[in-house]
Amino acid sequence: MTSYSDALLTDLYELTMAQAYWRSGVMGQATFSLFFRGYPKDRSYYVFAGLEDILDYLERFQFSDDDIEYLRSLGRFDEEFLQYLADVRFTGDVRAMREGTVCFADEPVLEVRAPIIEAQVIETYLLNQATFQTTIATKASRVVSAAHGRSVADFGARRTHGADAALKVARCGYIAGYNATSNVKAGAMYGIPVVGTMAHSFIMAFDTEIEAFRAFTHAFPDYATLLVDTYDTLHGVKNAIEVGKELEQEGHVLRGVRIDSGDLALLGRESRRLLDEAGFRDVGVFASGGLDEYEVERLVREETPIEGYGVGTKAAVSADAPYLDSAYKLVEYASRPVLKLSSKKQSLAGCKQVFRVPGPGSLYEKDVIALLGEDAPAKRAAPLLEDVMSEGARTVDPPPLDQLREQLAGELERLPSRYKALRGAPRYPVEISPHLKKLQQEVVRELRDKELGE
Amino acid sequence: MTSYSDALLTDLYELTMAQAYWRSGVMGQATFSLFFRGYPKDRSYYVFAGLEDILDYLERFQFSDDDIEYLRSLGRFDEEFLQYLADVRFTGDVRAMREGTVCFADEPVLEVRAPIIEAQVIETYLLNQATFQTTIATKASRVVSAAHGRSVADFGARRTHGADAALKVARCGYIAGYNATSNVKAGAMYGIPVVGTMAHSFIMAFDTEIEAFRAFTHAFPDYATLLVDTYDTLHGVKNAIEVGKELEQEGHVLRGVRIDSGDLALLGRESRRLLDEAGFRDVGVFASGGLDEYEVERLVREETPIEGYGVGTKAAVSADAPYLDSAYKLVEYASRPVLKLSSKKQSLAGCKQVFRVPGPGSLYEKDVIALLGEDAPAKRAAPLLEDVMSEGARTVDPPPLDQLREQLAGELERLPSRYKALRGAPRYPVEISPHLKKLQQEVVRELRDKELGE
Repeated sequence: MTSYSDALLTDLYELTMAQAYWRSGVMGQATFSLFFRGYPKDRSYYVFAGLEDILDYLERFQFSDDDIEYLRSLGRFDEEFLQYLADVRFTGDVRAMREGTVCFADEPVLEVRAPIIEAQVIETYLLNQATFQTTIATKASRVVSAAHGRSVADFGARRTHGADAALKVARCGYIAGYNATSNVKAGAMYGIPVVGTMAHSFIMAFDTEIEAFRAFTHAFPDYATLLVDTYDTLHGVKNAIEVGKELEQEGHVLRGVRIDSGDLALLGRESRRLLDEAGFRDVGVFASGGLDEYEVERLVREETPIEGYGVGTKAAVSADAPYLDSAYKLVEYASRPVLKLSSKKQSLAGCKQVFRVPGPGSLYEKDVIALLGEDAPAKRAAPLLEDVMSEGARTVDPPPLDQLREQLAGELERLPSRYKALRGAPRYPVEISPHLKKLQQEVVRELRDKELGE
Repeated sequence: MTSYSDALLTDLYELTMAQAYWRSGVMGQATFSLFFRGYPKDRSYYVFAGLEDILDYLERFQFSDDDIEYLRSLGRFDEEFLQYLADVRFTGDVRAMREGTVCFADEPVLEVRAPIIEAQVIETYLLNQATFQTTIATKASRVVSAAHGRSVADFGARRTHGADAALKVARCGYIAGYNATSNVKAGAMYGIPVVGTMAHSFIMAFDTEIEAFRAFTHAFPDYATLLVDTYDTLHGVKNAIEVGKELEQEGHVLRGVRIDSGDLALLGRESRRLLDEAGFRDVGVFASGGLDEYEVERLVREETPIEGYGVGTKAAVSADAPYLDSAYKLVEYASRPVLKLSSKKQSLAGCKQVFRVPGPGSLYEKDVIALLGEDAPAKRAAPLLEDVMSEGARTVDPPPLDQLREQLAGELERLPSRYKALRGAPRYPVEISPHLKKLQQEVVRELRDKELGE
């Protein structure tokens, strides 16, 4: 059977450029910088994610025989080049922020240094993973922030952009602070707690709602959260209370009720009242259905007695900002710093480091983008880009997900709250070091001179 | 190595429901209907996609030993049930619209009839594929419509939601009428033409832009479209013209120039003028950079001399509508028609067929959702749901992509143009047959009576 590798998951131009580099003998060391330009509406920080998938990809990077055969069939590549390509592995170095690091526009989150062909052909895959996963982790972090300590579960598997995306969304959500996912395969692969009880179809498969509740609690006497909105929510709560009392007599406890439609603030309060009146103060009210950070924040602000939120589609596709303007730019070739001049997208030349500078009380004050090798701009400033791959091999084991999750929670505590406002947050200050600024000016001047004769 | 199957790529509640069905002996035949509710802003029709991946999934559906072991580890499933689950295969029937069929809100695009547990546990995967791929195919169809015959290529691989999504996006785009993709693996897997030349980094790796152009045309004398906006677009066009003349002397022809930033209307016109003045009337101007159907339509309306468009991110994530409100609802259980009553989301009971009714001149006039087995509402009305799977096996071979593409193009020609307006299109009429309406009223009355005592 034909087998194409992920090395082939690249834009054709990466490979045509590779052949042109190869034929021109342009085979020197290149450094590329991956960063995000600006912010979509309502975003004021990013949560970097996608690194583990990137490192996996780099470690196994290799064109298969079928890949090469397909490229040959296109009739535009030199045979000698194809033979060279078949032997290419990724032998470069990678410095990157850890997954779950809070980061900001224009900051390199990852830098690759490798022979230019290796560093070039991986562009598409690296941008894909970093952009997608950072988009999702950032959105999820906003939901967690809006929930103010109430539990959040990922219910997005049915609406993500494909099956692979469903797994990554669950993982990014967990790093961002979700408590669980409904996605069983993600639970198995990443060790994330899984949650879930029943859908409307379950209720409808039985003659009556209360029969469906009884069938479910019979099968799961200790794990029953009953979905109450199939026919009429408050009527459903009354049925749940009746079944809850039956459970009690058998020595079990009803866990909760879930509302998936309607006015969640109103129905949440009324459901709570009915449960309390029946003596079910420990039976939780859970909500789902079209939720995002804005709606969760509203419900929390109105003190709706909802204990946990299931967030699906809108978080899982980052509906209000489904992509970021990411870039993977050549910043140095053969020890020569370079940049892209045109339009409003001038990039920063040279290999870099990002420093995070704490202020009084250890809250973050600002970041400084500096040249690699520069001294820290302040005593307690922490460098964010770490060596993660050397000569094509990981230099550190993948950290446990729980560690990334705790680290992010700690970072967000140190980010002053004004930068975490869901809307209208001011820009966190990101400075360019004087050395980098000077280099930038020199390179721009030289380019203008050389290219435009100015 | 641990190996989890895609059967596990499901919401946990599908499996808890399955155990509850199993313990209650609720094991009858169920029919589920998959449909899209309403339209996102600016959508007036859908292009159904995702069927082939759904059928692949159903044919190979089987929990692996590791899947079962993981479920066991959760400590909430009965051992006997897990043993039952290990033997479950999909043995049901599927009726569906073909991929690339134009469809509308509320119309079932797919109906599954199977023992309830089989039909239930596949919900998450089916919704995921149908929703995502229909979202993308619909967006791509709008871009093609806006381009009015100019060529369109998918450049989205770097910004889709993961690597798997990049492949599906290229495939959906091709069905919708794109001419090519930059995604090499998608080209290899699906036989889609691939395109691409160079990125800004290629220009920057050389000392000067013109040296980079020469290196590229040297490597690909017959396939060179030169990227002209790295430093200054019109200056870049002049360099391209110089290299084009050198190519001519060697007996080759420059293919085109690509502009990836700035005011595309202005730069497109100016580039055309410079090329024409140099006698390069056959050298095309291609554009990319943040394009979507709205921007392409504007450029086409203004008669910008751009011959082809590369559309990336905004089409590849369907940025203005990154998801659809899809549903997979139980419509019949053990020969009893059922529906969900509450909220504003009442579903249509019973197994169905969708008829497309042509008017004079063979343009589409309306659709009718009818009960399965009903007579066609008009002589020339065509049924849209076809048998595609019987007892778990495909009944038809996957049609070639080009066939789906041509079929869609033909359908869109028959859809009156007012329904294809990018903005403000009226609603295409979708009627409910009198039989279905009557059944609906009966089921609602019976449910109100039984559940709410009304």
